[in-house]
Amino acid sequence: MNYKERLKKFRSYFRRYRLDALLVTHLPNIRYLCGFTGSAGALLVSRNKCEFFTDGRYREQAGKEVQGARVIIARKPPILAAAERLAASGKKAETRAPWWTGVEGEHLTLAERFRMCVEMRSDHRLKAVPPVAEVLRMVKDDEEIKLIRAAVSLGASLFDRALQAIRPGVKEVEVAAEMEYEARRSGAEGMSFPTIIAAGERSALPHARASEAAIPRSGFVVCDFGVILAGYCSDMTRTVHVGRPTSEALRLYEAVREAQQAAVEAVRPGVGVGEVDQAARKLLQKRGFGQYFTHSTGHGVGLEIHEAPKVAAGGTEILEPGMVITIEPGAYIPGKYGVRIEDMVVVNERGCEVLTPTSKELETI
Amino acid sequence: MNYKERLKKFRSYFRRYRLDALLVTHLPNIRYLCGFTGSAGALLVSRNKCEFFTDGRYREQAGKEVQGARVIIARKPPILAAAERLAASGKKAETRAPWWTGVEGEHLTLAERFRMCVEMRSDHRLKAVPPVAEVLRMVKDDEEIKLIRAAVSLGASLFDRALQAIRPGVKEVEVAAEMEYEARRSGAEGMSFPTIIAAGERSALPHARASEAAIPRSGFVVCDFGVILAGYCSDMTRTVHVGRPTSEALRLYEAVREAQQAAVEAVRPGVGVGEVDQAARKLLQKRGFGQYFTHSTGHGVGLEIHEAPKVAAGGTEILEPGMVITIEPGAYIPGKYGVRIEDMVVVNERGCEVLTPTSKELETI
Repeated sequence: MNYKERLKKFRSYFRRYRLDALLVTHLPNIRYLCGFTGSAGALLVSRNKCEFFTDGRYREQAGKEVQGARVIIARKPPILAAAERLAASGKKAETRAPWWTGVEGEHLTLAERFRMCVEMRSDHRLKAVPPVAEVLRMVKDDEEIKLIRAAVSLGASLFDRALQAIRPGVKEVEVAAEMEYEARRSGAEGMSFPTIIAAGERSALPHARASEAAIPRSGFVVCDFGVILAGYCSDMTRTVHVGRPTSEALRLYEAVREAQQAAVEAVRPGVGVGEVDQAARKLLQKRGFGQYFTHSTGHGVGLEIHEAPKVAAGGTEILEPGMVITIEPGAYIPGKYGVRIEDMVVVNERGCEVLTPTSKELETI
Repeated sequence: MNYKERLKKFRSYFRRYRLDALLVTHLPNIRYLCGFTGSAGALLVSRNKCEFFTDGRYREQAGKEVQGARVIIARKPPILAAAERLAASGKKAETRAPWWTGVEGEHLTLAERFRMCVEMRSDHRLKAVPPVAEVLRMVKDDEEIKLIRAAVSLGASLFDRALQAIRPGVKEVEVAAEMEYEARRSGAEGMSFPTIIAAGERSALPHARASEAAIPRSGFVVCDFGVILAGYCSDMTRTVHVGRPTSEALRLYEAVREAQQAAVEAVRPGVGVGEVDQAARKLLQKRGFGQYFTHSTGHGVGLEIHEAPKVAAGGTEILEPGMVITIEPGAYIPGKYGVRIEDMVVVNERGCEVLTPTSKELETI
């Protein structure tokens, strides 16, 4: 990974927020900026230095993983070790003005800030700033896209296992167990979120985790799942049908499928995320299912399963080449059934490439 | 669950922190106080009211789960809906003094607090307070202990699967895959933390997740794993040996086993957690392995895998009946091997009961 380039872009925000340094405490941001994958650390980026604080458990691992930053093994919690370092740096030599250090407002807790201030007892000033690393992380570089492709490919391979496991009478959790077992055996570090297998009436619940409920003799089964591979997440949804679907059910499936296709086709550089959302929504409205599409169309995916940008109504982010997002419209008719279809796509110069290799023809079991 | 009793105890902290209300935003605390298990919510507890804010996705689920609180479905994020409610309550009728509302300092982020203040534009004052729900959660009631017993029992059953799977040449992740598959099929909602299978030299790394490394022909294998069942976590460690252990390896195993036993025997009401830690540490020092015990002796377990109290050197918490903690000393000789043995215990009137049913005799494979 090109950590040097990332740090350079990261520092370019110092001027905008009038900072002398920025303390990174959110672990995925730390991983992005210096490569550390452990569970305890703080990265202090100043104009001309970069220091990574962790504890003794991670001495060996930090030595191997961290790039572009000096590793400091501290006895204190990493955040406080960083605060101590800030305190020691005193005032600016030329102007005697205090230093300003940014902290990640979306992540630092009130208690962490309080403990930092107690530790510092100095002229150092802390300033909560909006997401910086998260903004950089929206646009993936070639190496990241390669890793995401691998995660998507492994994730998609689990769908075959789902097709084998889904049978009337089998519990939803049993299907999830089969898929997760396959994922582990194929080298996944874990699932990127709790597997959703939602059968029959439960397919109408957009956030239903796999439960002890048995798959009925007839009805939709929503399968929404993803893996983590080399730190990067995958995410996909396919909806299958057990037994023969009614013409009404088929109409719903086709409408969601068309809406998904319309949103995929709307993805290209320069387009706002709100327009992509609108493309799916408009299609479902035209087919009479608009009121049943109750969530947003998608989200960024990378080191975290949900990242910026959110592909939602009213969203203002503009798509750029290298952004990786999900396109996952759905329609849920309460008490009856629901359908969702989801791919991951990467924005390129001309439009986008669908990463998920799996067919969207309705599979019947 | 006796939510009424829990809320009563929770409110008893209002006087100590001079609060008129306390806003709970940490999800395990929300679950503990009103039963909600979803992923978006805020619970506003005032002296004589209790209101739970969530969004439209959770209308049905909140209606079924939430007890002792009025459910309010909001269009805004739940925290901001709560802030709006606070703003609307104006000043105190009698004194015209502003209300003071506590927020969870260890959980609320700087940005969340900022957005709340923007929403409120009022005389309401926010005050970050130390953990309250976490302190109550340390002592489990009978219903919780029953659920924890069930989780521990399911967790322990996975060890048989590990014993079947561990063979020279098998990858660590394959062992983990077998155990996790069994867990899912037995009804676990998931694992309570990433399964640790650390074989050979890797057994010397206390935090080694199961990796692609193969189990060598001879050496220790540390197996540290747990499940989530009905929301409650289990946690246990057993260390087995592949091939015939050397007398040196046996000495290490026996020392850790004695240390674990000594710590278990030190657990009783009125004793400080530091003393329990000391009991294990002293035994390992006596056997010449003191310097290799590089972590703390244990931690509370319940709705979260790591809760208060921390059973560590210098810890000041006093044990009480109903507390559930792990006892997990270990010794790790860098570049060579390591051993850890862990049970969960519940403090009772006379001492403690070991919940983990599994033998601590060294299993050789």
